[in-house]
Amino acid sequence: MISVAEAEARIIAALRTTDAETVAIAEAAGRVLAAAATAKFDQPPAPVSAMDGYAVRADDTTGLPASLRVIGASPAGHPFNGNLNEGEAVRIFTGGVVPSGADAIVIQEDTEARADSVLIKSAAKPGQHIRKAGLDFAKDSVLAAAGKRLTARDVALLAAGDVASVSVHRKPVIAFAATGDELSRPGEARKQGGIVASSGYGLAEMITRWGGEAHDLGIFPDTAEAIARIADADADLIVTLGGASVGDHDLVQKALGPKGFALDFWKIAMRPGKPLIFGMLGGTPLLGLPGNPVSSLVCAMLFLRPAITALLGADTKAELRAATLIRDLPANDQRQDYLRARTEVRDGKLCVEAFMIQDSSMLSILAKANALIVRPPNASAAKAGDQVDILPLEL
Amino acid sequence: MISVAEAEARIIAALRTTDAETVAIAEAAGRVLAAAATAKFDQPPAPVSAMDGYAVRADDTTGLPASLRVIGASPAGHPFNGNLNEGEAVRIFTGGVVPSGADAIVIQEDTEARADSVLIKSAAKPGQHIRKAGLDFAKDSVLAAAGKRLTARDVALLAAGDVASVSVHRKPVIAFAATGDELSRPGEARKQGGIVASSGYGLAEMITRWGGEAHDLGIFPDTAEAIARIADADADLIVTLGGASVGDHDLVQKALGPKGFALDFWKIAMRPGKPLIFGMLGGTPLLGLPGNPVSSLVCAMLFLRPAITALLGADTKAELRAATLIRDLPANDQRQDYLRARTEVRDGKLCVEAFMIQDSSMLSILAKANALIVRPPNASAAKAGDQVDILPLEL
Repeated sequence: MISVAEAEARIIAALRTTDAETVAIAEAAGRVLAAAATAKFDQPPAPVSAMDGYAVRADDTTGLPASLRVIGASPAGHPFNGNLNEGEAVRIFTGGVVPSGADAIVIQEDTEARADSVLIKSAAKPGQHIRKAGLDFAKDSVLAAAGKRLTARDVALLAAGDVASVSVHRKPVIAFAATGDELSRPGEARKQGGIVASSGYGLAEMITRWGGEAHDLGIFPDTAEAIARIADADADLIVTLGGASVGDHDLVQKALGPKGFALDFWKIAMRPGKPLIFGMLGGTPLLGLPGNPVSSLVCAMLFLRPAITALLGADTKAELRAATLIRDLPANDQRQDYLRARTEVRDGKLCVEAFMIQDSSMLSILAKANALIVRPPNASAAKAGDQVDILPLEL
Repeated sequence: MISVAEAEARIIAALRTTDAETVAIAEAAGRVLAAAATAKFDQPPAPVSAMDGYAVRADDTTGLPASLRVIGASPAGHPFNGNLNEGEAVRIFTGGVVPSGADAIVIQEDTEARADSVLIKSAAKPGQHIRKAGLDFAKDSVLAAAGKRLTARDVALLAAGDVASVSVHRKPVIAFAATGDELSRPGEARKQGGIVASSGYGLAEMITRWGGEAHDLGIFPDTAEAIARIADADADLIVTLGGASVGDHDLVQKALGPKGFALDFWKIAMRPGKPLIFGMLGGTPLLGLPGNPVSSLVCAMLFLRPAITALLGADTKAELRAATLIRDLPANDQRQDYLRARTEVRDGKLCVEAFMIQDSSMLSILAKANALIVRPPNASAAKAGDQVDILPLEL
């Protein structure tokens, strides 16, 4: 058995980042940049007004009230192209370019409009309510670095920088196959004593949300001939669901060995999910997740998520959070434990409680949970009020 | 000016939940249930083994080692259909149905296989390693309630309960229009002193992620004739970007009044984003977001997100989180403030620091932020070490 950290490191070491492709900015959210995206121009491109009001020379507002001649207007998108001289003002609106000669904006509320002039009732300081050219970003500055996964806000920023398309890593194709004679699909006739294939439906959504392209290869019976067909999948990473426990493991070895499968490891000191296969199937990495649906989904969060992140060339480090225990926990054995748990905010403090039942077959508990409490190997008993590490369940 | 809470309540009160539609389980993640989804059968459907080993009668394992005759096997998907009598064992695998007559599982590691028998080396307690029928869920029990937004884990649970399709609320169509003569699209020729339309690109992703269907109506010039065309949009909610500040507000009123626009409110005591229009355009709610990209995206998080959630029939309550201030904050004025900020975990504690510059035109700061610090109206100054409310920025 190897540790969770070693397993993750070995998986990541075996992966190669996908190639770059170009996508339009409207399709770029959630993608990972293959190259830095830089601004095409200064933002704002010229000094602009931060308010509705009048562009003035601050010097002209020392004696109050000051009456200034209005020589034009500068709404956003329609700059006033003349020069503003002593005793003059230009009507201006938020986002309007500040005319040359002006050095301050007096907000509308501090003025009184006349026929061709404006009465200024408050002294202006130079620079007041003016956004300088390049305040937000300068031409050629990096708006988002290579390896960044783009948020909706990043995409807005890139658009503002006139970036019409970006170079991103191709979404890795994650092909997954369920194995098991007991499985049927939802809505199909169930087998005698059989159950319904479930984790693949959750997994497909997780793969998509983590940035991959999910390919459902289907359900494979527990025979070497059937499992061998999984090797035909054209993918960046193949995932099997089930087929990783003692007897199954032999089957997967027997089925995929002739196809060139080279095992790296198949046991991790963790719960749920000890039996987890990883190796190379020809040139394609293969991750064999446990068959219990809770184990398979938890192991997907722990190993498939960083694998997809690594394939995308992004930072794989997951940030643990701390929370305060609501109820005592017993000491842990040598396996790292991931307890299904529920957090709640009490007096602004993040608190967490593990479910009493931690059976790895119970999807109902996993669905109710919103976090996993991470218990390191051989952790001593923990009391209510102690801090523990948690992993939030985001999807 | 009305408060943020009142604005949200008024917006939500004006919305009607979308109709229900049926979608396959593979398309259901992220959707909101219009009706409870219930299990089609008990899970597990029969008592099953939680481990690989032997199904036995616990009574037969009191004298150790006990030699039991192996009368068959019960792998997952292939139940052993006979009865297990005194002195007998059945080879069993994880997920295999426990044969009638057996009441315990002895794990493989505690046995020694012989030709036609097995040596049991550890006494079994009745019920040991057996998952009872219905342990995870019972037939007809609610797997996910109406109004629940389905996670990937929920979808797996529904699949396990043989739910092939679910009734969900139709994705509300959110049509959005940018207004402003200064705007061009990324990659197009920029206008003199103009800027590039940006918030719509972020908004489209947010709408999608919040469960809506984003329709980009395009960029509209600052004329009443152009803005009036926005009224033609066929949508559950129309959003305008810009056109909400003093002069613009008049323009929107002038343009949309003849189209039947009935204003509800247009000023909120908040920063960024005071000017925010809400009203009904005929039968369609219209939300006019401010033109500054930071203001528009922050206001979208605060008002459009709960609006979409309400249209979907889900719970709109957003949970504020608490974090510890890294740096002092000054007292607040009468407007509720949403400070762009960055959280980090220090010694397991969630800490937060506001950016020094809070200019509402600066998308670069919003992109760097990962949270907003919420400062209530007239909040007194806060010191480093104090707890403040935050809203995490999730996308």
